[in-house]
Amino acid sequence: MSCSTGKNIVVTVFGQSHSQAIGAVVDGVPAGIGIDESRIADFMKRRSAKDGISTARREADEIRIVSGIVDGITCGAPICAIIGNVDTKSSDYDDFKNLPRPSHSDFSAYFKHNGNNDIRGGGNSSGRMTAAICFAGAVCIQLLEKKGIYIGAHALSVYDAEDERFDPVNVSAEELKKIGSSEYPVLNPDSLEKMKKAIEDAKAEKDSVGGVIECAIVGIEAGTGEPMFDGIENKISSSVFAIPAIKGIEFGSGFDGSRKHGSENNDDFRKCGEKIVTSKNDHGGILGGMASGMPVIFRCAVKPVPSIGKAQRSVDLESGEEKEITVCGRHDSCIVMRAVPCIEAAAAIAIADLVF
Amino acid sequence: MSCSTGKNIVVTVFGQSHSQAIGAVVDGVPAGIGIDESRIADFMKRRSAKDGISTARREADEIRIVSGIVDGITCGAPICAIIGNVDTKSSDYDDFKNLPRPSHSDFSAYFKHNGNNDIRGGGNSSGRMTAAICFAGAVCIQLLEKKGIYIGAHALSVYDAEDERFDPVNVSAEELKKIGSSEYPVLNPDSLEKMKKAIEDAKAEKDSVGGVIECAIVGIEAGTGEPMFDGIENKISSSVFAIPAIKGIEFGSGFDGSRKHGSENNDDFRKCGEKIVTSKNDHGGILGGMASGMPVIFRCAVKPVPSIGKAQRSVDLESGEEKEITVCGRHDSCIVMRAVPCIEAAAAIAIADLVF
Amino acid sequence: MSCSTGKNIVVTVFGQSHSQAIGAVVDGVPAGIGIDESRIADFMKRRSAKDGISTARREADEIRIVSGIVDGITCGAPICAIIGNVDTKSSDYDDFKNLPRPSHSDFSAYFKHNGNNDIRGGGNSSGRMTAAICFAGAVCIQLLEKKGIYIGAHALSVYDAEDERFDPVNVSAEELKKIGSSEYPVLNPDSLEKMKKAIEDAKAEKDSVGGVIECAIVGIEAGTGEPMFDGIENKISSSVFAIPAIKGIEFGSGFDGSRKHGSENNDDFRKCGEKIVTSKNDHGGILGGMASGMPVIFRCAVKPVPSIGKAQRSVDLESGEEKEITVCGRHDSCIVMRAVPCIEAAAAIAIADLVF
Amino acid sequence: MSCSTGKNIVVTVFGQSHSQAIGAVVDGVPAGIGIDESRIADFMKRRSAKDGISTARREADEIRIVSGIVDGITCGAPICAIIGNVDTKSSDYDDFKNLPRPSHSDFSAYFKHNGNNDIRGGGNSSGRMTAAICFAGAVCIQLLEKKGIYIGAHALSVYDAEDERFDPVNVSAEELKKIGSSEYPVLNPDSLEKMKKAIEDAKAEKDSVGGVIECAIVGIEAGTGEPMFDGIENKISSSVFAIPAIKGIEFGSGFDGSRKHGSENNDDFRKCGEKIVTSKNDHGGILGGMASGMPVIFRCAVKPVPSIGKAQRSVDLESGEEKEITVCGRHDSCIVMRAVPCIEAAAAIAIADLVF
Repeated sequence: MSCSTGKNIVVTVFGQSHSQAIGAVVDGVPAGIGIDESRIADFMKRRSAKDGISTARREADEIRIVSGIVDGITCGAPICAIIGNVDTKSSDYDDFKNLPRPSHSDFSAYFKHNGNNDIRGGGNSSGRMTAAICFAGAVCIQLLEKKGIYIGAHALSVYDAEDERFDPVNVSAEELKKIGSSEYPVLNPDSLEKMKKAIEDAKAEKDSVGGVIECAIVGIEAGTGEPMFDGIENKISSSVFAIPAIKGIEFGSGFDGSRKHGSENNDDFRKCGEKIVTSKNDHGGILGGMASGMPVIFRCAVKPVPSIGKAQRSVDLESGEEKEITVCGRHDSCIVMRAVPCIEAAAAIAIADLVF
Repeated sequence: MSCSTGKNIVVTVFGQSHSQAIGAVVDGVPAGIGIDESRIADFMKRRSAKDGISTARREADEIRIVSGIVDGITCGAPICAIIGNVDTKSSDYDDFKNLPRPSHSDFSAYFKHNGNNDIRGGGNSSGRMTAAICFAGAVCIQLLEKKGIYIGAHALSVYDAEDERFDPVNVSAEELKKIGSSEYPVLNPDSLEKMKKAIEDAKAEKDSVGGVIECAIVGIEAGTGEPMFDGIENKISSSVFAIPAIKGIEFGSGFDGSRKHGSENNDDFRKCGEKIVTSKNDHGGILGGMASGMPVIFRCAVKPVPSIGKAQRSVDLESGEEKEITVCGRHDSCIVMRAVPCIEAAAAIAIADLVF
Repeated sequence: MSCSTGKNIVVTVFGQSHSQAIGAVVDGVPAGIGIDESRIADFMKRRSAKDGISTARREADEIRIVSGIVDGITCGAPICAIIGNVDTKSSDYDDFKNLPRPSHSDFSAYFKHNGNNDIRGGGNSSGRMTAAICFAGAVCIQLLEKKGIYIGAHALSVYDAEDERFDPVNVSAEELKKIGSSEYPVLNPDSLEKMKKAIEDAKAEKDSVGGVIECAIVGIEAGTGEPMFDGIENKISSSVFAIPAIKGIEFGSGFDGSRKHGSENNDDFRKCGEKIVTSKNDHGGILGGMASGMPVIFRCAVKPVPSIGKAQRSVDLESGEEKEITVCGRHDSCIVMRAVPCIEAAAAIAIADLVF
Repeated sequence: MSCSTGKNIVVTVFGQSHSQAIGAVVDGVPAGIGIDESRIADFMKRRSAKDGISTARREADEIRIVSGIVDGITCGAPICAIIGNVDTKSSDYDDFKNLPRPSHSDFSAYFKHNGNNDIRGGGNSSGRMTAAICFAGAVCIQLLEKKGIYIGAHALSVYDAEDERFDPVNVSAEELKKIGSSEYPVLNPDSLEKMKKAIEDAKAEKDSVGGVIECAIVGIEAGTGEPMFDGIENKISSSVFAIPAIKGIEFGSGFDGSRKHGSENNDDFRKCGEKIVTSKNDHGGILGGMASGMPVIFRCAVKPVPSIGKAQRSVDLESGEEKEITVCGRHDSCIVMRAVPCIEAAAAIAIADLVF
């Protein structure tokens, strides 16, 4: 079931980078919920290429919802959207048919599929597939808002340029909405300039950079989630690792917390009006897999884009010869900014499955 | 399905810290495979409390396999093991019924279950449940060995004391077996002394420490795994977050990789005899969710044990009063060492599901 | 996932006929629900062998609930029960190791498991496994009652002896409870005498008989269920075919309905007080996989017990020789009566998954 | 997960009768398998309306495969097909918005979806959805043929007109192929005439008829399948009940078998060359949920089409008034012939999940 996830809200993603279309099916959405398609389109735009820092491939990402919504209202049937693949240049990939690009899935997919994998654009391991994830996530985001749950993410770092962190205690729905409507999802404008510079420098060197994305979710009721295998951490991580390039995730104080004492890392409970809260949020809003009611906070490591213009070494899978490879397709030098809505979408898919 | 995981090898875990028994069912194991019960017992012992650095609760962890194995050979029926809960002192928890321990699941479980959760020993969110995971993992480890796959982990850090890392390219099955049979799973003996000191210091202060565990898996064939939601990263993370105290995971160069250039993080392919390998292993043996054939390498952040003898603040969930709390049960000051086999077990459960 | 079923209420069954124990795990039960263990025991007794018409194997079926219930109340953790296998005579099966009993699973299981299947007592294909299903069902029955849903079944026929049918429109919770508490689940006492006679006659001939079980479920709210693959028919049939010996199922007018005109088979709607009902119930309470609010009615075909004392022909799987076989173990001549609670249990498992 | 089924070959179906499109995603298909699209189209045609005995709605059922197949070969990515809904007349349904058609899903879907269900054409409970099931089944049929497994079905009865049964022992792949390529899936031409007559008579009376479909599957290896919840009976029934109008299923001797003695119903084993076979096949090729190697034989009850031109009674769900209803849309008087390939498709989906 590699292309499906979830139990109550089941998301199924299909397509390859250069197939006729990609798309997603979202099953389990209750009937009678208004879905605003223009907001879905807006969300998709956040994933689009941005001048200067992105690929030259232009993906209009026009979504055609073919089922599940009647007059703007869900009818209980699965919601399916089709996204055409238009600006594809499959010939770019002729050279790579047997010459796997370093740190790409070409190599592993070749062995998995015995050479029958769709190499064009990375096939169904392509970053292109995140458009389908974003559609499903955009639907889930609207579902979650009906329950008062809001999700937002920002680029916490790009290469060595760092943004501020969310305030893990006080981050608000308003702040998350604001970051979602800004052109670049960065909290501190100064950080943005440094990030752009890092990307431009990499591009100039025909190189690429990675970064870290921080995501916050507010409004999850205490007790949401499950112990054991369906905890919030399990669900979110299982979902975000579907996004190519993600190589790490941490919740709350995460790896830093592992270097603290319990007395320092523990979050005391206290009253705040009628609510029970914690003064800080090293637990990242999750205790034993279940929500504490504090904001859920996590960070994801995004690896530098593996497609680079510099010469690299590879091995021809047919002849067995070692060869030099230069990846000349239209690729981003950094996908951190574009991955921000993808992380939000992946988180929304995971949380929607837990609350519906 | 919070207590089950997997599709081909389905593991179901049951019990609470102080229920009559805990246990696990492993379904989907092919018939005709020899299972060495004494090795399972040995594996369970690695999870046991160790003098000086562990809890005073003694868990004999005597496993009673009640089904699925006939004369040491699997018969195709689900394998179920029961582990009795013997040395329980439920009275230790009377004070906490309405007074949630900071950074424990008491609080979130109370809201999830509307106050009906089993508070004793942390109920089914307890670290005790990892005994059941270890049983299931021990079975999977033996299954995986039939396919030439070996798993081993070590304490990479405890508080500020750091061990050496595995050689991500050359780590071998032999090395992994050796670490599994040593008393403390640490590569460098000097590191072990520092770790012990960090634990003792914390204990003296009625405090606790966390750490990082590094795990390696060798022998996974290139192409194993799936793109999208059932990739190796998705599966392993989904499994290890079932272990209480895990708050982060990274694969290969992970968070460090996010601060590198693509040219630096990418792993060139080259021939090594008949095999195609990479000279380093920043991709952690996984490309697009699928194995590259290089060792799978990941690291997990273990939070410091939340149960500490120092006074903390909490809120009485009945009266709404803020109160002071001191956790006096028999708790570990550090569970990193004991969590090492749990991580191996969780990884084995995830990988077995992908290869069987 | 052969031994598990369900998505919200997940039932996992383990064990073999002659393993140390069998049992079941019921996951997903909300916390705070009172479970009456004595009623579970009573339910199990209904499945027990009955004088004159059943096997000589005496199964005390003492259930040990090892987790999930604290002081009679569910705590949200999976409920696991262990049922010891006591009165086993494995030597009865020595002769059949390579000589498959006609119309038993010995043959197919041998090929599935390459000869490693547990032949003793039919292994995990044994009717013995229905004790575990009955435990899980008994829990689900109590859950369903909290929602006003009641399930009852009776022996509609044994060989050529037929009972009356339930009134598909007016069957009531009271009637279903009454049949559950009677010694033999038959509506018409005259039918019972004929059935007993048919069983005795078969027994005298060292032969066996089958029959049909009819089941009714009342109190399911209109709209319960799903279209497509998770409809009430799909779920119930998927569950009842786990009971060995079931070879057919029909809902409402079923096969008879296929020989009617639409005008005859259709159920008009009409008002009855505030409720909308139908005057007859050929649709069996299910329209498009979803409940109509009328009683759900279905019937299952139970094949005659394949273990008979008469000589039959088989083939030695080792030598390839055709041989004569006489099955001398302690077997029922008819399991229809004992299967009645099993059908109720299977239905309860299916419905609980849809309403929780 | 109402719209998905399967674990290894996962089929997800989407759409409503009058939505922009319907379709299916088939995930888990191994890469490197040739899929003949023209054969899929041929299969779809078998489901199409036929002159004289079918609806006036003309469904071109042009399938657009948008992913998963490259140059006629599967690439390992999910196969998605879109089927446009063209000849829809939604206005036909304006009268039924609040007036549920007797024995249709309108009523139950209204309550499930709180009145937000898509009433047009029956929404996603429509027989239209079987086009998507047929696509998925057509793919699975080609997959199964690579393993030597063939599926075929025929109309065993329409109203009171009966066809011959398959020879349950000797039915062959050739015979199944032949029936698949004939215009009407009936074994005996005389039966066909009687069936047509029954349909015409019903039509003349503005009425409808049902029937029984018999299906055979040959080539399944002994041992295929699972005991308990994933047996062949469980899987097939769970799949075929997704087809609206199916109200019963029986395997082998089924309900007839329940009226036999064990000595009569049991199937002795004997040698036939190197193979072990049975002389008759009352067990329907399935023992304990697993294949015996004999043909799998099952029969399904198809209820008469509920849409009839005769006046019926219903209740207005808004006003609560009892009203007369006459269903004037373009409906079949009998869907048995058209349901034959649907049954084959549903069986193929179930079996493919077990053998891949």
